[in-house]
Amino acid sequence: MPKVTIAENILAGNDNTAEAIHRRLAARGIRALNLMSSPGAGKTTLLERTIAALRDRLRIGVIEGDIETTADAERIERAGARTVQINTRGACHLEAQMIGAALDQLDLAGLELLVIENIGNLVCPAAWNLGEDARVVLASTTEGDDKPAKYPQMFAAAEVLVVNKLDLLPYVDYDMAKVRRHALAVNPRLRIFELSCRTGEGLDAWCDWIIAFARGDPGKTGDP
Amino acid sequence: MPKVTIAENILAGNDNTAEAIHRRLAARGIRALNLMSSPGAGKTTLLERTIAALRDRLRIGVIEGDIETTADAERIERAGARTVQINTRGACHLEAQMIGAALDQLDLAGLELLVIENIGNLVCPAAWNLGEDARVVLASTTEGDDKPAKYPQMFAAAEVLVVNKLDLLPYVDYDMAKVRRHALAVNPRLRIFELSCRTGEGLDAWCDWIIAFARGDPGKTGDP
Repeated sequence: MPKVTIAENILAGNDNTAEAIHRRLAARGIRALNLMSSPGAGKTTLLERTIAALRDRLRIGVIEGDIETTADAERIERAGARTVQINTRGACHLEAQMIGAALDQLDLAGLELLVIENIGNLVCPAAWNLGEDARVVLASTTEGDDKPAKYPQMFAAAEVLVVNKLDLLPYVDYDMAKVRRHALAVNPRLRIFELSCRTGEGLDAWCDWIIAFARGDPGKTGDP
Repeated sequence: MPKVTIAENILAGNDNTAEAIHRRLAARGIRALNLMSSPGAGKTTLLERTIAALRDRLRIGVIEGDIETTADAERIERAGARTVQINTRGACHLEAQMIGAALDQLDLAGLELLVIENIGNLVCPAAWNLGEDARVVLASTTEGDDKPAKYPQMFAAAEVLVVNKLDLLPYVDYDMAKVRRHALAVNPRLRIFELSCRTGEGLDAWCDWIIAFARGDPGKTGDP
């Protein structure tokens, strides 16, 4: 797949660049998601499962952000989506200019949904607009139920919270009600999905939302 | 416990400040560890277990770094260590000036070991020297075995890798040999411990290392 390597020192006017990206995608009818989480919460696996489940129903493109390696982009490409890898070489988040460079290498024809998988980092990515229509924060049951309280900016910046690794709930101390309560305290409009990428539990509801979101169905996505 | 709130805009000459902190601690015979990981890998739990296990053998002080909340410092204080909380209010890593301010509020008399629990972030903290004698990166079996390859700066910057959540190994896909191989490829001198804070497996070896490190025993810690 194409690969864009970004130097660390770019950036000026991120919001302007993000706005231009948003217009560029909207002109083609492409909706965009910015997917963020801690390292290892399961962003790539969630994308693999989503792409596989929706293969015949939705044309999805992916921009894979990683500090190093193309391993995740290779997984996504195998799952069946057009993919561009961004390697930031140390930078801890994606910026809009990186997305612009990646879009130049992605075949946008016919795409309905673009998913931008951000760097694994629950802090810095929350501050950078990438031109997306919505932000999804992915949490997992193995990383503790204190995350919404300890990383409120990320949960405040997101439209959707997905809690992954439901299958491991019996083996960890994770109070789902507390997570919901704290997440909704910092962000009352947050839409929350609970699922397991391993067992498939809860994936249908998430995929239904993805389709409604990509088609711009306001009733189903909660958009204004 | 005391609490220091840091504005986001401080910082100049981090390395000089770190060097001064190192001298200040060394003059009192205090050794310092900088503990880093993804959010939710188990830094606070590891500290709780370590402090409890060594309560009668080692005087440990802790600086707790969090973006928000004092929950972790309260846990550490209950475990029996002198504690200062730093809240960075959005900043994604600790910096040396924050440590200097925290030390002003920590009773250093008789302390043998200072542990600095960094912000949960596998990227940015790796770049900031805090005056520590050694860096410990904590990984966990639930966050995937690709972390050393995808976040090489963190693993290259550490002297010690602790892999936590061994008890969950039967329920996840985690290739420990691959983690060791990739971690040692970016950092051949890395010392690796595998343990479970939940079951206690492997904690003795880690605690033995902590004592040897705090006492400056070169044979047991691998120091030059």
